[in-house]
Amino acid sequence: MLEIECPSVTPEAVLKASGHVDKFTDLMVKDDKTGTCFRADHLLRDYCNDKLEKDHLTISAEQASELKNVLALLEDLSCQELGLKIKEYGITAPHTKNPLSDPYPFNLMFQTSIGPSGQSPGYMRPETAQGIFVNFRDLYYYNGKKLPFAAAQVGQAFRNEISPRQGPLRVREFTLAEIEHFVDPENKSHPKFSNVAELEFLMFPREAQLSGQSAKKICLGEAVAKGTINNETLGYFIGRVYLFLTKIGIDKNRLRFRQHLANEMAHYAADCWDAEIEASYGWIECVGIADRSAYDLQAHSEKSGVALVAEEKFAEPKEVEQLVITPVKKDLGIAFKGDHKKVVESLEAMKEQEAMAMKATLESKGEVEFYVCTLGKNVTIKKNMVSISKERTKVHQRVFTPSVIEPSFGIGRIMYCLSEHSFSTRPGKAGDEQLGLLSFSPLVAPMKCMVFPLVQNQQFEEGAKVISESLTSIRISHKIDMTGTSIGKRYARSDELGVPFAITVDSDTSVTIRERDSKDQVRVSLKEAASVLSSVAEGKMTWQDVWASFPHHSSE
Amino acid sequence: MLEIECPSVTPEAVLKASGHVDKFTDLMVKDDKTGTCFRADHLLRDYCNDKLEKDHLTISAEQASELKNVLALLEDLSCQELGLKIKEYGITAPHTKNPLSDPYPFNLMFQTSIGPSGQSPGYMRPETAQGIFVNFRDLYYYNGKKLPFAAAQVGQAFRNEISPRQGPLRVREFTLAEIEHFVDPENKSHPKFSNVAELEFLMFPREAQLSGQSAKKICLGEAVAKGTINNETLGYFIGRVYLFLTKIGIDKNRLRFRQHLANEMAHYAADCWDAEIEASYGWIECVGIADRSAYDLQAHSEKSGVALVAEEKFAEPKEVEQLVITPVKKDLGIAFKGDHKKVVESLEAMKEQEAMAMKATLESKGEVEFYVCTLGKNVTIKKNMVSISKERTKVHQRVFTPSVIEPSFGIGRIMYCLSEHSFSTRPGKAGDEQLGLLSFSPLVAPMKCMVFPLVQNQQFEEGAKVISESLTSIRISHKIDMTGTSIGKRYARSDELGVPFAITVDSDTSVTIRERDSKDQVRVSLKEAASVLSSVAEGKMTWQDVWASFPHHSSE
Repeated sequence: MLEIECPSVTPEAVLKASGHVDKFTDLMVKDDKTGTCFRADHLLRDYCNDKLEKDHLTISAEQASELKNVLALLEDLSCQELGLKIKEYGITAPHTKNPLSDPYPFNLMFQTSIGPSGQSPGYMRPETAQGIFVNFRDLYYYNGKKLPFAAAQVGQAFRNEISPRQGPLRVREFTLAEIEHFVDPENKSHPKFSNVAELEFLMFPREAQLSGQSAKKICLGEAVAKGTINNETLGYFIGRVYLFLTKIGIDKNRLRFRQHLANEMAHYAADCWDAEIEASYGWIECVGIADRSAYDLQAHSEKSGVALVAEEKFAEPKEVEQLVITPVKKDLGIAFKGDHKKVVESLEAMKEQEAMAMKATLESKGEVEFYVCTLGKNVTIKKNMVSISKERTKVHQRVFTPSVIEPSFGIGRIMYCLSEHSFSTRPGKAGDEQLGLLSFSPLVAPMKCMVFPLVQNQQFEEGAKVISESLTSIRISHKIDMTGTSIGKRYARSDELGVPFAITVDSDTSVTIRERDSKDQVRVSLKEAASVLSSVAEGKMTWQDVWASFPHHSSE
Repeated sequence: MLEIECPSVTPEAVLKASGHVDKFTDLMVKDDKTGTCFRADHLLRDYCNDKLEKDHLTISAEQASELKNVLALLEDLSCQELGLKIKEYGITAPHTKNPLSDPYPFNLMFQTSIGPSGQSPGYMRPETAQGIFVNFRDLYYYNGKKLPFAAAQVGQAFRNEISPRQGPLRVREFTLAEIEHFVDPENKSHPKFSNVAELEFLMFPREAQLSGQSAKKICLGEAVAKGTINNETLGYFIGRVYLFLTKIGIDKNRLRFRQHLANEMAHYAADCWDAEIEASYGWIECVGIADRSAYDLQAHSEKSGVALVAEEKFAEPKEVEQLVITPVKKDLGIAFKGDHKKVVESLEAMKEQEAMAMKATLESKGEVEFYVCTLGKNVTIKKNMVSISKERTKVHQRVFTPSVIEPSFGIGRIMYCLSEHSFSTRPGKAGDEQLGLLSFSPLVAPMKCMVFPLVQNQQFEEGAKVISESLTSIRISHKIDMTGTSIGKRYARSDELGVPFAITVDSDTSVTIRERDSKDQVRVSLKEAASVLSSVAEGKMTWQDVWASFPHHSSE
């Protein structure tokens, strides 16, 4: 997988081509008097839910069914329909009860201006994917012009939410990790699919949602074989996302893969699944895995006039009837000088219909006006500048726009859910107290180890420093706590912070290593302590191995 | 060191407090007819340099000395002075030769608007440091309220440069890595200074610059002892920056530490040094290491009304005359309800002069108007709400604003210089060709290893896949090249990309490992190949160790 880092500030042309400038909007209403802004769909949803919950005894069955219907269709309502519903139900601004404006689209991108002139609008990227698409030609070249391949980007994305809420779940700036896997649309098999085909986990296909069933365990291989999941590559990434999430510590019983309904999916998407994790806010969309077909590359290709395509070389040449566009570079060079390369690229990028129309005009009138989008203007093409024909020729390759399969990870949401799934409490020694426990696996715990001198004395503190230096040299994150706080309290504190291990220096020559979840302890020599800790923190040994290899003491 | 990640989109209040909204500007002139923008100081500098170079035979000694003087003072010229010089010299717009506007300040921050109301201006952060300062109170708490400690942030910074130039050296979006090390202003010693005190490297102190000398090798310990470098902690970070840069591969003969002249430094800074690296564009400022004193924390404290201070507990209480401000929380709570906490904090943050003035007014008039900046409005404080006095009391602690020492790394600039310092050419086999060589050390090379089947056959390709899987499992970045290109060309290609090692699969049971710089080769069994590679790539073994341990073949 190729890694790439693109700028956050993005020129308008890129986000115009991707559709974000025109369509990345939420419908907003304003409090007529205070000017406070609200998301129109949220107000309507809250109204319907409230009514169904609080007034269920007073409303008729028909009214209830109408409200449920509105909730089901919420995402499909047009601006006008939303406005009519808000009027019909007499919904007013929360708190003030003032009347509301009509809904209108509010673009969620942060706008800015690039350069000193004030003439170049730009936006903070709303996702990291577009940077990969506009760099497709270079990435394809770096990959030796071979498909399939993927490029990935981890970085900040920016959405000027109307109402940020739910802690880290809906924020205006967040970390996205996106993979764009480019694949031949005629062959979406995946060579490593067999590695994940036997996985079984909770899936919630479209049909199950529409028929009121719940998510159920399905074998990934079967889901692909039956066509529930559109293709092998999409299935492969769904499997890898499942493995990733469960490996970092997400509870597999509170993780499901939900397929988008037809009305949720963009018209061009072939199939789309969300990894949803259950937490206190409900089922939270944390990873989207979509087959976006050739849409993105085609959109940028059309607006930029730069072909974003791949080639398949044939073993044997094939004879086909083909559109042949041959710009006459010499004549174009004389006519357009420095601009001629852009004219050539635009001529070559013409689709069949446009090219044949140009051919006809050139034959009848001898010249034609031609819009070159990379120049932003019309140029006059004369008959001598280009030859266009349809010929039966031997072709040695197929040229096509790759499909893209996109797993997109909301890192903050995953971290939030992981924290909830990892948190529990257990009784303290006093009996009536409950102590917090954050069971981060050593793999994900930001801090792998605490180092505690048992009591404040020079000898133990020296030992702690020696161990800390060894841990630093082998890059194990840790912290020394030299405070005189009782060892029990220091353990409780580090359990609550999710630190999986503690090394307590309680002699000249040896130390105690304590594991957080079992509270079990082993005795290891001072010299070996850092290397044992690194083995168990990096997964080369399990805690059971350590337990079996050293003198130990159970907490039970 | 605590790591922190703050948002890029920053509310105006933060950057108003830091001074960026008012002062983070460059002086700009516009072409009167086309509107094209230029940096005023760049035009004046180019004019002077041009004149000195091209017309040195025709201008008088006085004129030459005047031009040199302008160049020396360039950074100190006011907006008006710059404008007068441009007029005096008759400087016109490059290319068009049109007249220029008067210079005016252009703020280099990208501006945007936060939220849907349009009422909350924000800016893309021009540096990562401010996020650390505004979070000082929490960071200090996380560090157990102990000084010294440091917080670090790696992330994007944004500057809307008037004219980006010189490849990656002056761009509008770039990666900064900043450390803010907070220290007691009365004790800037550093416990680990002795680890770096004996380093000797090129320094260019202020006096040497002013007296026309060049940079020379100075021992770090002596530079601190003589006061050339202001204090031990600043010296410690200078030493660590030197070790870092040379370890990643910067040539120590093209690296110098240049002290800021008095006119380059902010008025509050105690001392400031730049790590400058020589490359084809000249000496490039890549890391700044500054003692910014207490300026930043005080600025945010004053504007926010939140005390950003540290405490030193005394072993024995001391008797001093002290300002005592005691807000009466009960009465304030009744008067200001939900706001009362902010009022309390603002009262407690008053300086002596303000507090004594309030005391006088309360005594004479019984109440006083008081501006609470965190509320953005005046409140009326009555006599019963606060008691203010100066008392001789025993104090148990000293409260002070920490000084901050800031090493700030321009990652793109460092990477650019590293690429230049690592690049060389050497003759190919043909004799008349020169092959590129990028000598990235295994530590920094993004790709550690290439895996080559010697020729295209199934057996070697299988072996290559086995090795690739082993390398993946131990997280060694690598790439297989299965093309039929000759092995010599594949080596040349990977040398040019800076890949330090290649594994060539040329038998069923063993492989050749080749080192890039020496071109030397060793034979290793197929089974051992990945682990040998990982040892040498991660620095556990040197290439000399590998060479001595296996059958080998020199390229000579």
